[in-house]
Amino acid sequence: MTSIALIEAAAARLAGHVRRTPLLSSPLLDALAGRRVLVKAECLQHTGSFKFRGAWSAVSALDPALRAKGVIAFSSGNHAQGVALAARRHGVPAVIVMPADAPAPKIANTRAHGAEVVLYDRAGGEEREAIGARLAAERGLTLIRPYDEPQVIAGQGSCGLEIAAQAAEAGVTAADVLVCCGGGGLTAGIALALEARAPGLRARPAEPAGFDDTARSLAAGRPVRNAAASGSICDAILTPEPGRITFPVLQRLCGPGLVVTDDEALRAMALAVLHLKIVLEPGGAVALAAALFRPGAIAGDAVIAVASGGNVEPAILAEALGRHGRAGSEAPSEAPSEAPVG
Amino acid sequence: MTSIALIEAAAARLAGHVRRTPLLSSPLLDALAGRRVLVKAECLQHTGSFKFRGAWSAVSALDPALRAKGVIAFSSGNHAQGVALAARRHGVPAVIVMPADAPAPKIANTRAHGAEVVLYDRAGGEEREAIGARLAAERGLTLIRPYDEPQVIAGQGSCGLEIAAQAAEAGVTAADVLVCCGGGGLTAGIALALEARAPGLRARPAEPAGFDDTARSLAAGRPVRNAAASGSICDAILTPEPGRITFPVLQRLCGPGLVVTDDEALRAMALAVLHLKIVLEPGGAVALAAALFRPGAIAGDAVIAVASGGNVEPAILAEALGRHGRAGSEAPSEAPSEAPVG
Repeated sequence: MTSIALIEAAAARLAGHVRRTPLLSSPLLDALAGRRVLVKAECLQHTGSFKFRGAWSAVSALDPALRAKGVIAFSSGNHAQGVALAARRHGVPAVIVMPADAPAPKIANTRAHGAEVVLYDRAGGEEREAIGARLAAERGLTLIRPYDEPQVIAGQGSCGLEIAAQAAEAGVTAADVLVCCGGGGLTAGIALALEARAPGLRARPAEPAGFDDTARSLAAGRPVRNAAASGSICDAILTPEPGRITFPVLQRLCGPGLVVTDDEALRAMALAVLHLKIVLEPGGAVALAAALFRPGAIAGDAVIAVASGGNVEPAILAEALGRHGRAGSEAPSEAPSEAPVG
Repeated sequence: MTSIALIEAAAARLAGHVRRTPLLSSPLLDALAGRRVLVKAECLQHTGSFKFRGAWSAVSALDPALRAKGVIAFSSGNHAQGVALAARRHGVPAVIVMPADAPAPKIANTRAHGAEVVLYDRAGGEEREAIGARLAAERGLTLIRPYDEPQVIAGQGSCGLEIAAQAAEAGVTAADVLVCCGGGGLTAGIALALEARAPGLRARPAEPAGFDDTARSLAAGRPVRNAAASGSICDAILTPEPGRITFPVLQRLCGPGLVVTDDEALRAMALAVLHLKIVLEPGGAVALAAALFRPGAIAGDAVIAVASGGNVEPAILAEALGRHGRAGSEAPSEAPSEAPVG
């Protein structure tokens, strides 16, 4: 089980290898949300998402002889890139098992970070676990799970340690910390770190509409599944149900979940471009969307939103800008009036 | 004249008010450039550009009684926003004189940062200096010049102090530091800071084709003007000629200038989105473009590029993504080959 001691140990292994990402803000976003909005920009992390933290933590925790044989992961997204780069920087092989119909840029990026990509035919009914198990057995590879793995959760918790310190530097000691939530590894890690280091800060999961299994599970007091497996642009955080290890942590420590629409995620992406100058993917923007567009569901004069990833398809970012990219439309109303002359 | 002592004093006044922006990198950009590329992300600075540093430095250096009467600036761009927010956070009025045909978002943003915007009719032949002089005299406002002002240069120099420290942390002690250059305030400030704190680092101006007055002036050994006043998308850095105060500093300390096309600036913007997850405006991307696309003009195994601003029109960012946003096309060629199974 992940403890604050495991998180602190992971943070020590991560030091010098993982970026301390900035806590950004803009008076224009504050005016829009009606309170201070502090944005933890994990999109600026190596490989473009927080996943590198957990991957580094897990790879660095392995016994060196075992690690030398290599690691394996199943992922078509951010976890794939995180594991690939963490393995490369440890000088060990990484095999990433991806569906053959995964977007070409994700396959290319994973390869560019040094991994061997093994494609399987999703439509043909191939069992990716069987492929992975065979490869792992043949080569002695260690499986790095995306969230139900204590050392991965501990690595994500290092983000929570940074939030605790940065919020204190910003003078914020009591606030909700909204976290984009798929399997719950980042949310659980942050919740555990905040429990120990910033008890006035409370983690809350943020999810896309229709894929709010965690919010509904927290409300129901037991894990419940999503009705659909796909159908949101927030692909990075679509999981069928809360994690087996992560959910009990969330149940003990988190506040109620927040849910936003895909269009609100796009609008948050456009506002992040306009006012923070960072690039978010839809699944990495749902926490900021909740901070901006669910003010009534949040208490206090400040809120912290974790912007968890930025690996967006350029066409989707362009769509967000096209729909919601008019600067100035959110200008606060207290701006002084103009006095033209001449 | 700006000295290292003036820069250090400015940095002390800036502490806690100005962000220490991160020095970002991506192995995919390194592979593209053929050397390490470190990107100083000043687009993440308050108001979206380095201009807030110089504005804060100048406003904070004023005699308090004088400062209380307010400040004035001529700008339709990043300097306007920097001065507006620096004044607001000092609790003093700011008047920004802008052409009436400036882009609406820039006017709105400047107002949103608390400034009084005074519009003048550029087509009608109004003399903005006359308007400004009258307002300054009537209200006792102090003019904050955009670059030919020692305290502004000192504030921009704080960026150079950070680069010196961050490059050392990254193990880089000898490299060119490419700086997007308009009037030369940022380039001069950084050059002075590097001279004192990181003598192995050398500042070099980067400019858009057709507006390379600084590169040509350095080559000629005397200030020369641009032929045109407009005609590049790099609006933030189009100045008619090098600054009166800044140019002698550049002449003494800088290496040769680098020049890139508008399309290369757009391509650098797209690559910054894909691989660094930051938003750049064209004028803030020319240094990165030079780092990536002029490898033969740069020596050494590392280069530092200052990404000086991110206040881009959404439509221009969308155009950059449309033209150059295919991820994976720049993947390094040494990526291992795939082994499909099943």
